[in-house]
Amino acid sequence: MGLTINDIAKISHVSSTTVSRVLNNSGYVKEETRQKVLNVIKKMNYTPSDIARSLSKSETNTIGIIVPDITNNYFGEIIKGISEVAEEKNLNIVLFNTDNSLQKELKALKSSKAQRIKGIIMTPAFGDGNFKNKYTDLIEELNIPVVLVSADIKHSNLSGVFVDNIKCGLDATNLLIKEGHKKIAIMTGNINSDATMDMLCGYKKALKENSIKILNKYIFNADFKAEIAYKLTNDILNMEDKPTALVICSNMMTMGVVRALIDLKKKTPEDISIVGINRVDFLDIVGLQVTYVEDSPIKLGKSSMDMLWEIISDKNNKSVRRSIMTPRIICKGSEKKIY
Amino acid sequence: MGLTINDIAKISHVSSTTVSRVLNNSGYVKEETRQKVLNVIKKMNYTPSDIARSLSKSETNTIGIIVPDITNNYFGEIIKGISEVAEEKNLNIVLFNTDNSLQKELKALKSSKAQRIKGIIMTPAFGDGNFKNKYTDLIEELNIPVVLVSADIKHSNLSGVFVDNIKCGLDATNLLIKEGHKKIAIMTGNINSDATMDMLCGYKKALKENSIKILNKYIFNADFKAEIAYKLTNDILNMEDKPTALVICSNMMTMGVVRALIDLKKKTPEDISIVGINRVDFLDIVGLQVTYVEDSPIKLGKSSMDMLWEIISDKNNKSVRRSIMTPRIICKGSEKKIY
Repeated sequence: MGLTINDIAKISHVSSTTVSRVLNNSGYVKEETRQKVLNVIKKMNYTPSDIARSLSKSETNTIGIIVPDITNNYFGEIIKGISEVAEEKNLNIVLFNTDNSLQKELKALKSSKAQRIKGIIMTPAFGDGNFKNKYTDLIEELNIPVVLVSADIKHSNLSGVFVDNIKCGLDATNLLIKEGHKKIAIMTGNINSDATMDMLCGYKKALKENSIKILNKYIFNADFKAEIAYKLTNDILNMEDKPTALVICSNMMTMGVVRALIDLKKKTPEDISIVGINRVDFLDIVGLQVTYVEDSPIKLGKSSMDMLWEIISDKNNKSVRRSIMTPRIICKGSEKKIY
Repeated sequence: MGLTINDIAKISHVSSTTVSRVLNNSGYVKEETRQKVLNVIKKMNYTPSDIARSLSKSETNTIGIIVPDITNNYFGEIIKGISEVAEEKNLNIVLFNTDNSLQKELKALKSSKAQRIKGIIMTPAFGDGNFKNKYTDLIEELNIPVVLVSADIKHSNLSGVFVDNIKCGLDATNLLIKEGHKKIAIMTGNINSDATMDMLCGYKKALKENSIKILNKYIFNADFKAEIAYKLTNDILNMEDKPTALVICSNMMTMGVVRALIDLKKKTPEDISIVGINRVDFLDIVGLQVTYVEDSPIKLGKSSMDMLWEIISDKNNKSVRRSIMTPRIICKGSEKKIY
């Protein structure tokens, strides 16, 4: 391990230029010399280094992926989508898991630059706006192609593939309104997450367009956590003027709601109608039918890699590219209005 | 993007050696010159390249992770464990997702070598033994430190952190025997998977030690698939001399069994007692209580990275390191013998 071109040159008694010529099949090398070098390479078990090649081009064949939570299979599926396309393009992937920490994101971005990565696909962590300006500045400064995936950074003007979260909230709420619901609650995620605030915006829009009054008492914040969603579901079912339906803004919170319903021996849609945003795999597996609005993380991953490839391949075109995926509704019955 | 030391040298009207000295803070450079170079570096937005540094050491600060299925959060948790330790050691991670294809694994290994990676942590795909010899040969030939995690390659003599799968099967079966069960069935995964064959071995051992006859009709193969497990559960419950208990060798198959029980309106342990191997997160969340034998993937990830670090840091010590984690039993009640 760790042999260089110089080592091969020394052992073969030729110049490193000659070794380089043999490796790259370029320039004139006497056949006898060529065979001698090839023999040494074989005997010493030498693999030409991508690093050496990268240095001459001052760029690697590698892209970076930055995700907030590698244990969430939503991001696993995004990565799968990215890696399928990356493989076709012969690109390697450097992975950064940030645990939703903006500090770690900054570190990952800087490290990518130092590694001469071709480009970055990232799902930004959510956090307060001021901090975000800091790292959009950094992205600009680093001057590496960046494609955001799934989550946007508001007012950042970065390229990316996104889900239309306003439409997610709008479609989920409209579906319930069409069923005849008028008392519709919403459970949002972290208020610093643009995604969930967009969903709330879609929820309000749907109510407004249907002349249903927006009531603060029907807006609940569960901070994306299953435990908080669990407790809030209890509160909601015990409200005096309780809602007949609930929009839930993430899969983790849907789990919390479902668990609460099971523990309270309540049923959906009989006791409360629900529409989730994003699929919860196992609900199907155990035969629980929850209607949801979905984006496809594998598709998001593929599209983001396609976009990054376009940007890398056409460096003169500096235009910002943005692609917004429309969510679709999968009806399972939990949206129905029974009474 | 793509500036080299030479570019900085040219623009600063100094030699590249001088630039290198400024960057590395080594050797004598006149203060005036140093300031001039630093100004150019700042103005040109130049980041010193890890690649250049790597070349001089002919090794990078990067490790490779090879997993069979990035969408399975079991591997997400292994990666999280690895990356926590890697971060402390200032190591970057290159990720390869092989979709359980041995061809892709070979490609990933070769690519790691070309990238001068410090070492590799991998969970090998399962496949026929002959093919495996091919790539254990390759690992030897490549001469990169490799640590296996979670799954072993039999007769390979590679370092790794493993789960004691025989003990998983043994403990799960013994738990049921202690409850008074005598007709105990087992559902195995793919017969090419050493892990599941070890579990079967543990199951047989437990029966033997308790003088319970091993019956072929109680051994079922579901190939790790939830759908097959679903169908087999139906078959098992309709057997003439049906078992009173079932050991299930993976989380995916446990899901299939649970779904079948729900659809058939059967309960555990009332209709059949079950013990799973590996946790199924959501069962807890929806309040279904299934006893299981568990390994901790985050801990496996951390230990494998610790082991790789030891190997990298002590290159003269070529001994094979193997660490076997003992599983623990989490009782939830589904193992009980009711009748």
